Amino acid sequence: MKDQVIVEVSIVPLGTGSPSVSRYVAACLGVLQKAEGVKYTLTPMGTIIQGPLATVMDLIQQMHEVPFEMGALRVSTFIKIDDRRDKLQNMEDKVQSVKRRTG
Amino acid sequence: MKDQVIVEVSIVPLGTGSPSVSRYVAACLGVLQKAEGVKYTLTPMGTIIQGPLATVMDLIQQMHEVPFEMGALRVSTFIKIDDRRDKLQNMEDKVQSVKRRTG
Amino acid sequence: MKDQVIVEVSIVPLGTGSPSVSRYVAACLGVLQKAEGVKYTLTPMGTIIQGPLATVMDLIQQMHEVPFEMGALRVSTFIKIDDRRDKLQNMEDKVQSVKRRTG
Amino acid sequence: MKDQVIVEVSIVPLGTGSPSVSRYVAACLGVLQKAEGVKYTLTPMGTIIQGPLATVMDLIQQMHEVPFEMGALRVSTFIKIDDRRDKLQNMEDKVQSVKRRTG
Repeated sequence: MKDQVIVEVSIVPLGTGSPSVSRYVAACLGVLQKAEGVKYTLTPMGTIIQGPLATVMDLIQQMHEVPFEMGALRVSTFIKIDDRRDKLQNMEDKVQSVKRRTG
Repeated sequence: MKDQVIVEVSIVPLGTGSPSVSRYVAACLGVLQKAEGVKYTLTPMGTIIQGPLATVMDLIQQMHEVPFEMGALRVSTFIKIDDRRDKLQNMEDKVQSVKRRTG
Repeated sequence: MKDQVIVEVSIVPLGTGSPSVSRYVAACLGVLQKAEGVKYTLTPMGTIIQGPLATVMDLIQQMHEVPFEMGALRVSTFIKIDDRRDKLQNMEDKVQSVKRRTG
Repeated sequence: MKDQVIVEVSIVPLGTGSPSVSRYVAACLGVLQKAEGVKYTLTPMGTIIQGPLATVMDLIQQMHEVPFEMGALRVSTFIKIDDRRDKLQNMEDKVQSVKRRTG
């Protein structure tokens, strides 16, 4: 359903002078830590958020501003939306439905 | 600047029964054809939109609804935002600045 | 180092007639279950693989064939490589270095 | 067919100290300029390559090395493969089949 899309986001500043980006990622997560109505999980390649589409997209726009506030001049943000409306999706269920099949 | 982000979007319905998705892509483009304040170009792998970040993100959410209105049950939408704020970006200039270097 | 890139992959068949793709994802994972020299983890939005770049890319090409062997006519595969060579990267460490900062 | 996949690639160095990446993109394109058996086109958001899957993936791995040879310590490479096997795909045809529908 539209209220429970699953979205992956990865926000990366370019030209910062250091190959490490973890302090930017941590600061972006601050937006989610204060947010209501969404669940999220951190992976080695991004952050996965579950919640209503409009809410998630609004949060991502707030997250996208964070590296600029920290001094970045260019930010590359990648978003992948998985929106399934024939049944209620859930982050854990998606992983479990695959694991059940792989044994 | 924030008003001129460059965003690539690709919106694909899953489980439609046909490997062709061009009629969905064309319908999504209808949203951009009626939009004001943005430029866009179609590539073999997606659509690239230039405009203010909030405007572009709002249009993408409208485009994302189109396959559902056409009967799709699941839509996978991929978005990549390039937001550079040390100088005004332009879709054509990005390509030209690379081409100048490759000769 | 080049031997330990971290790569996210998502392989989706188009036009299959069903919005569910978990049986295809599970079959693709079969390639990784038999592979040597890589670690991987399943997320709600894809699979993350750690290992030597050439090995990982070869495995992904094998995984990409799986939906075709199952009858799919079109496959959309998305790959994101994170290759850091100033220090050895590790899937768990990437998550931990962010979590340490968010508290 | 397997010989004519269409692949989008974007290769970005992180931590270079400058938000501009066009000299890296231009150098990566050098790999394609010398390549045989593929077609490619530059877009404002990446490079789109058409050719046999194994050839394209091999070229992308060569391109991915280029920023490291230029001093980058971390490279983020994004690849999207569109592989359709019920009919021969072509970069120009994909765009035209959408344009025919939008008028």
